[in-house]
Amino acid sequence: MSILAVGSIAFDSIATPSGRADNVVGGSATYFSLAASYFTGVRVVAVVGEDFTSEHESILKKRGVDTRGIEHAKGKTFRWGGHYLDNLNEAKTDFTELNVFEQFKPRIPTEYKDSQFLFLGNIHPSLQRAVRKEMSGVQLTGGDTMNYWIQGSRTELIETLKLVDVLLINDGEARMLAEESSVPRASRKVMALGPRALVIKHGEYGATIFFRDGAFGLGNHPFRAPALPIEEVKDPTGAGDSFAGGFMGYIASQPELTREVLKRALFFGGVMGSFAVERFGTERLQSLTREEIDARFKVFRELTHLE
Amino acid sequence: MSILAVGSIAFDSIATPSGRADNVVGGSATYFSLAASYFTGVRVVAVVGEDFTSEHESILKKRGVDTRGIEHAKGKTFRWGGHYLDNLNEAKTDFTELNVFEQFKPRIPTEYKDSQFLFLGNIHPSLQRAVRKEMSGVQLTGGDTMNYWIQGSRTELIETLKLVDVLLINDGEARMLAEESSVPRASRKVMALGPRALVIKHGEYGATIFFRDGAFGLGNHPFRAPALPIEEVKDPTGAGDSFAGGFMGYIASQPELTREVLKRALFFGGVMGSFAVERFGTERLQSLTREEIDARFKVFRELTHLE
Repeated sequence: MSILAVGSIAFDSIATPSGRADNVVGGSATYFSLAASYFTGVRVVAVVGEDFTSEHESILKKRGVDTRGIEHAKGKTFRWGGHYLDNLNEAKTDFTELNVFEQFKPRIPTEYKDSQFLFLGNIHPSLQRAVRKEMSGVQLTGGDTMNYWIQGSRTELIETLKLVDVLLINDGEARMLAEESSVPRASRKVMALGPRALVIKHGEYGATIFFRDGAFGLGNHPFRAPALPIEEVKDPTGAGDSFAGGFMGYIASQPELTREVLKRALFFGGVMGSFAVERFGTERLQSLTREEIDARFKVFRELTHLE
Repeated sequence: MSILAVGSIAFDSIATPSGRADNVVGGSATYFSLAASYFTGVRVVAVVGEDFTSEHESILKKRGVDTRGIEHAKGKTFRWGGHYLDNLNEAKTDFTELNVFEQFKPRIPTEYKDSQFLFLGNIHPSLQRAVRKEMSGVQLTGGDTMNYWIQGSRTELIETLKLVDVLLINDGEARMLAEESSVPRASRKVMALGPRALVIKHGEYGATIFFRDGAFGLGNHPFRAPALPIEEVKDPTGAGDSFAGGFMGYIASQPELTREVLKRALFFGGVMGSFAVERFGTERLQSLTREEIDARFKVFRELTHLE
């Protein structure tokens, strides 16, 4: 099965207490695609500038990602600079240069139209909606968003959420979107807007999936995947996108869309997020093996397993 | 088996977004004892003033807690006032009146000397150590501490930690105690000071237990218990002490001290913490049944259980 991923490709300059990396290939579509590529075929739609060379693109190609949907526009690629202090959960932005990303209008190649799964990365909700409408035949749509759109484009976002099956956001975004401080109540309010399931990411503490009553199986009990206590977080950039890639990638690799599959997918999301932060940028995600991924899945499982 | 618990008894005045409660019986020893009382016999050592009536004491007595070790001193009982804003993880102190607690010197009744388990609540480390030395025959000692002692009485605390088997603290306290931002590394540094196991509480996200290599069984893999997403946290006061009560109470109820027992204890800690916050003060902890506790244990277990 194939996933079509739409999002950003960027050059990141990152400083953390462990060191720094400059002008490394990043962006939501990059992290998502690399993480998902260990589970299923991935096709990417994004925009880059003239400074994005075939060497940069080879990071995705080496992992078998279909890059025909990457538009090469005149100008420079999106650039982001940020740093993390001791609190690795929060990035401080040093600069944002949107460049070619500012005028990004996702164009979906004809060869991508038969994709069974769709992931709408964190871009303007109206662009997400346009893509979703063009891909009306998909089995499942996952989506991401952020505070910026929740506050600034709420009406657009609410229209888009009607077309999203599984939304992946963090605690703060869920509270803001639902205007409700209790996370279980916030989850019901968000699901009433469209999504059949809501994944709430808790950073270093894992993630919880809430189900709309009866969606993907019986009942409405939430499920929680823990995160491994990590020895040294070198660079948290892209952890959430890598989580989404592991989550969606595992789902797309399975023959059925059951609740048990979504639970396991939540664990695989955590696994891919935990790998992503071990090195700077996408370095760790470029060189994994499926054996390493499955071994860490077992460790995550043991982490909360009572005899 | 019996646990001897040493700590504070207080009158609390609490305001949260859900309402307020004034002059309700609280304190670390109260929450701990009530939570542990559902698993095993509990004996308490604390101090109260003349304003603490037999009606107040009956809250503990009704749960079968042995209150002979409560010293009735001249003066007023310890009083604490605090409030919580939308962030229910952090209490803002409105006032602290130590009163009789200021001169507290724990005195252990002869009848308590055969207790097999000891819990050193959050009091001055030198008082904790004096109690621990008097109870040299215990099978296992659990202990709590806080930023105030870590910063202000570090030398005393480090002496005390040599005599503690399992320390229960939160993420921030662990980082501060170890002077190390990585929690896995901090845990090893803390265990090198004495404890064979370290429980790190993550508030709404559960808790992790780290083991010293080979302590309570083979290996040194950590274990994590999730926390249930709670519909409405009415009052977070005492959640940590209730966690400790469930954790220590379950351990004391078991015939052996294995790693599997400590893992289950971590779940029971989370269960008791989750009940505590459902109502103001100790209200919910006064009226539970063992059936309700075991039912919630199952829910916690299901929460992360993959087929």
